[in-house]
Order: sequence, then structure tokens, then C-alpha cells
Amino acid sequence: MNSFIYDIPTKVYFGENQLGHLSEELYKYGKRVLLTYGGGSVKKIGLYDRIMEQLAAAGLEVYELSGIEPNPRIETVRAGVQLCKKYQIDVLLAVGGGSTIDATKFMAAGALVEHDPWDFFVNGAPIEKALPIVTVLTMAATGSEMDNIGVISNMETRDKIGKGSPLLQPKVSFLDPTLTYSVGKYQTACGAADIFSHIMETYFTREDDLFMLDCVMEGLMKTVIKYGPIALNEPDNYEARANLMWASSWAINGFVMGGKRKVWSCHAMEHQLSAVYDITHGLGLAILMPRWLEYCLNEETLSKYVQFGVNVFGVDPALPAMEIAKESIRLLRVFLFELLGLDDTFTKIGIEEKEFPAMAQKACKGKKIAGFQTLYPQDVENIYKMCL
Amino acid sequence: MNSFIYDIPTKVYFGENQLGHLSEELYKYGKRVLLTYGGGSVKKIGLYDRIMEQLAAAGLEVYELSGIEPNPRIETVRAGVQLCKKYQIDVLLAVGGGSTIDATKFMAAGALVEHDPWDFFVNGAPIEKALPIVTVLTMAATGSEMDNIGVISNMETRDKIGKGSPLLQPKVSFLDPTLTYSVGKYQTACGAADIFSHIMETYFTREDDLFMLDCVMEGLMKTVIKYGPIALNEPDNYEARANLMWASSWAINGFVMGGKRKVWSCHAMEHQLSAVYDITHGLGLAILMPRWLEYCLNEETLSKYVQFGVNVFGVDPALPAMEIAKESIRLLRVFLFELLGLDDTFTKIGIEEKEFPAMAQKACKGKKIAGFQTLYPQDVENIYKMCL
Repeated sequence: MNSFIYDIPTKVYFGENQLGHLSEELYKYGKRVLLTYGGGSVKKIGLYDRIMEQLAAAGLEVYELSGIEPNPRIETVRAGVQLCKKYQIDVLLAVGGGSTIDATKFMAAGALVEHDPWDFFVNGAPIEKALPIVTVLTMAATGSEMDNIGVISNMETRDKIGKGSPLLQPKVSFLDPTLTYSVGKYQTACGAADIFSHIMETYFTREDDLFMLDCVMEGLMKTVIKYGPIALNEPDNYEARANLMWASSWAINGFVMGGKRKVWSCHAMEHQLSAVYDITHGLGLAILMPRWLEYCLNEETLSKYVQFGVNVFGVDPALPAMEIAKESIRLLRVFLFELLGLDDTFTKIGIEEKEFPAMAQKACKGKKIAGFQTLYPQDVENIYKMCL
Repeated sequence: MNSFIYDIPTKVYFGENQLGHLSEELYKYGKRVLLTYGGGSVKKIGLYDRIMEQLAAAGLEVYELSGIEPNPRIETVRAGVQLCKKYQIDVLLAVGGGSTIDATKFMAAGALVEHDPWDFFVNGAPIEKALPIVTVLTMAATGSEMDNIGVISNMETRDKIGKGSPLLQPKVSFLDPTLTYSVGKYQTACGAADIFSHIMETYFTREDDLFMLDCVMEGLMKTVIKYGPIALNEPDNYEARANLMWASSWAINGFVMGGKRKVWSCHAMEHQLSAVYDITHGLGLAILMPRWLEYCLNEETLSKYVQFGVNVFGVDPALPAMEIAKESIRLLRVFLFELLGLDDTFTKIGIEEKEFPAMAQKACKGKKIAGFQTLYPQDVENIYKMCL
């Protein structure tokens, strides 16, 4: 068991009718606010007006950057950095899902340096300071509201790279499940797959770990399995939206990691897909997960699958181990492709074989993915092919 | 489902060989340190020397208060307050278990006011500021290392009262499982019972709650059931000590509460026992828990027992509901009294019936305990009698 440091200081206002505390929290960090958001949904659900009214009434000076795209791009980060510098912003307020929050994190860091923010990703530029970040979450998926990591795409170089720093941890996040009522079926399903993947990638490990955290992860996975389909069919089911939302934060805020090495195989493989094809992250993960599990299943890795099958999917522990393992993968497919209704092959979403060798090389960073099972470029190609 | 604020900023260094970061963390808060601890065990295991050497090497000025008793007393808090004032202490370093940390919290608050610290408990004196607190945990039980609550006894008035404030939350806590290797069988067993009780008291609720947190609590309870007996029989089993230690923090740091009202019945009843008889808190809880569950079991409360029996103790879900409920209580008794080996009656530990009416009144604060099942003084007396 490895030692670790637990340090997740984000304060969370959870529940409906908590948003009234927003301006009081922003005020702790200053008066000049950069509000960042994505497309029009924040306006459509009336959230933009609610926030602007409250902030104006509190005497805060609000500047805006809208149009942050899914798989947010470095150009958008650069635009935010310029606004921060131009208006001497004190605090950033990200209103949206993971993409908006991720991009905002690097605006906060970029605002306080002279170099280009892409240098954080490729030239080893350190993150040594950052403006404070407050978030209002409108989609349960990436967990960015309670972690210190962000993923940014560079379409020019076809890169999608993640980077973290304790300085990027949001100071305060507002999690109001009712703000996710308007998230459509497809995005809700992709979000659920994304949450599930964060837990599963941490859960499948060969390291000596904390049984306690395995139990917690099993509980989080059961939560996503239970409420994902409910949220799809009853978009304004508070209980379902609340459980998904809180699970999304805890799936990836670092708690369940507990000192384990953090090499996530499906994410490494998926980032290449969305870098090249700009597909929704959660969808790419959904297609990859069961294939990756199939590919890694062998006598050596078997015991973890048995634990997964019995404790997460309720498979009969009396069955032979290999049968439990296969049944767990089958039930995962049922969850992802039947209950969440996601597309189950690359072919269906237009991803073609010709890119696989290059993507596999990038996924392995030219070497390998040293995760649950070590994957070399040929392995990644094989897994990609299983997804066709 | 109630809204809530999640705010647990304590930074935790978890694992062996983390203690080297102690002086660097203390330095963030100042140079003048009040080191607080209990009896001789901190010296016996060499921890006192390790800490003193490190702090001296870092140039910190260390003052000391030793002899903090189990069920810590207000006189001890007063002594600590005087030292803080006399030596203009910057930061308090509590080295020990829950008693030492609890007492230290009120020294930290008392140091910055003129009135007597007992006024925090009985005269409604507000906690508006406190010195920063750092802890080094030597026993897994109360969770005080990661929460903002403390319980102090006043033997003169026969009171034992808990009080909390965000200002009492430790800034940093060091959780090194090897520091609990020397905790004896009895204290380890009492600690396990205490941890279990914190989770169980939160778990048994009638409120609409977060399924996700129920899953987490079930996982924490399974962890205590699995590792409590192992730690008893193999005191230097790192995995067992680590799981118990981390579970102890998460049982009561507020996470699993998730907006539920916080009225704990067994704790209200137990505090009267240890206030009058000075018994170990975890032992009192162990004797009370199964009786309380028996007393509250009825058709209305049944479903929670079924969930508890199936998910925590693995009782066959095909059995009739009432049978599952009774089996869960039987298995809890097996865990507490056979596997942990704790005394199973008040009679065995010298608690007599004559005090029951007065203790029941105090437990109900003259009115009632509005917990899972509302208890009036007569109910509490009945439960006390079931424990004889």
C-alpha cells in the first residue's frame, strides 16, 4: 500500500436553492469576475440571468467569455487568458460542465504567466500560481468541479492532453441537481459512462489497495448503474440527478485513488479518438471499456473481475470465476448499450481503421500504457479493432 | 433530500514515513507550538522523541501539555488555555487519539477568549476564532482528526457534552497506521466499535437520502467488520490498521451525512454512561447498539434493517424481512461480543440500575432524542435495562 496525501479543499454547496451563496463566495476573492460558459444552454435554462442579476446586485464587475466548446481548445483558453489580463480579473466563475471548467482552469493559470498556455502541456512549463476558480456545475460527468485536472485539445497538432495542479482546484463549487434537468438523453448517457469509467479505471488495479476504497468504488459504480437509466427516462428526477452529480465528483476527486498509481488505460486510448474525431468523451469510453476488459482478462487478472462482477453487478459468487468475469462484462455492455442506449461500435460513429496505428502510438506516447495490464501500441490497435 | 454544504478542508498525510512533513506544516502557522498528549504511550513508542527532535531541528519553540485523560476533562482544557495564553502559542499539535484531539480543539478556541472554556458548552458562548490545530493520530476511533467536533466532560456537574465549529477542524492530520500497532486489544476493539457506531448512527435514518452515501456507509461498515478482528489478533498488520484508520476518519468527517439531520441516539445514551462511570466510550456504545436496534425494530422501520442485513452482513435477501432484520442484529452481536471480544452487558462493567432514571433524563435533555426512532426518557430507561 502506497502512502498518499489527501488534500481536497473544495467547498461544495449541494442541493437546490444554494445558488444564493454565489456572490458571497466570489466576494471572498475579489470584485472583478470573469464568467465563462459554453453554448446557449446556460441562457436557455435561465441560469445566466439568475447569476447576472445576483452578481450585479452584489456590486461585482462581471466580464464574459462564452462559446467554450466540448473538448475545449487551446485557442479558447488563450482568449480567456487575454480577458483576465485585460480586465485584471480577480476570480473566474465557470458555469457549465467539465469542458467549461477544464478550460477555465487553464485560463486561471495562464492569466498569471507571460508564456503561451499550451506550454503548460507540451513544454513542461510549471503551474506555480493561478487565479481562484468558482464553479456552477450544469452536467454530471467529468468531476472537474472537485478536482485539479483539466484536459485541453489542440486540433492543429491533433493533441488532447490532461494536466493537473493543486492550484487549479476550484475553491467553491455549486452542485444543484435541478440545473442538470435539461441535459438531454444522449449527454446524460455519455456523462454516466464517463463517471463509471473514472471509477472503473481506478478500481481495476494490481496494487495492494485499501479494501475500504474498493467498497466505496463499488458503491459509486452501483449508484451510476442504478440512476443513469432513471435520469435518462425521468430527466427531472431529483434523486437520480443528485446521486449522479455527487457520484461524479467523488469518482475522480482523488479520494478513491488512495495512493494507487494513476495510469488509466481507457482514457489514454479515448483521448486519441476525441482528439482526431471530436466525439463525445463518454461515448468513446463506453465503446472502449468492455473491449478493454475483455482484452485484459486472463488467469492473472481474473480475481479483480470476480470482485467486480459479484459486488457491482450482483453476479452469483458460486459460479466459476471465469464465468463471473465474463458475465460482468456482459452486464456492463447491457448497462452501457441497452440501458444507457449508447452506440456500441466505432463503425456506428464513423471512426475508421486507417487512423488506428497513429492513434495507438500516441495513446502509448510511443512506448506503452503501464496500467492494469501493460498495453503496447499493437495491443491498443487490437483493442481499437475490437471496437469496430 | 436536504441540501447541504460539504466543507472538509483538512489535509491528510496518510501512510508510514509521512511524519517528516510535520515541521514544514507547522511552520505555515507559526513558530510557537503547544504539543499536547495523553499518558505515556506516546513516549513508549518513541513518537515523542521523533517529534521533539524534528521540531527542534526545524527551530520551532515547543511547549507541552501532557496527561490528557480519556473522556478529557474541562480542567485539562483550562490548563491548555493557560499555556496558550502564557506562551503566545501560534499552533497546537495534538499527538494521540480522540481524547487528546478533542481537548486540544477547545484549548485552541479557549486561547482566544477571556471567558471560561466551559462556557462554550453550557452558556452558549460562540466559537468565533481558534488557533490552528495539527494532529498526529495514534488511535483509530473517534474521527476527531478530520472533523470539527469535540466532547468534553465535567465530572463536577456529571456532564459530557459535544460541540463543534468549522474553526476547530484540524488544518493537517498525520495518519500513520504503524503508530497504532501498539494499541492494545481492548482499545482496538473499543475503537472499532466506536467507528462502527458512527457509521451506523448515520445510516439508520428515516430521511430521504443519497443512495450513493448509503453504499459508502455499507462499505465502511464492512471494512470495520473485516479488519477489526484482524487488528486485534495481528496488531502489526498494516493493511488492517490502515483500513481501520482511514475508515475512522470517513465515518464521521461529515461526508456520509449528506444533509441528514444529525441526531444520534446511541451516542446520546452513551455519553451519560461515560459521564457518570468514566467507561470507555466505544465499550458503552457496543453494549447499547444491538439493544437500541432491537428496541427500534418494527414494521415501520423494518426496511432499513433489511438493507443493513443484506448489504453489510450478507444475509440472504430471500429470507422474510423480519428474519433478515433479527439476523442482522444477531450478527452485529457476534461481531461486537465474540469477534471483538467486548463485554456484552452493563452488569459486567459495573453499571447499575439506580442511575438510569437520571441518566435517561439527561440523555433526552429532559425531553426526547429525536433520532431514527424518537426516544423519551422512559424509552431510554428501557434500553438501559435491556443492557443489564
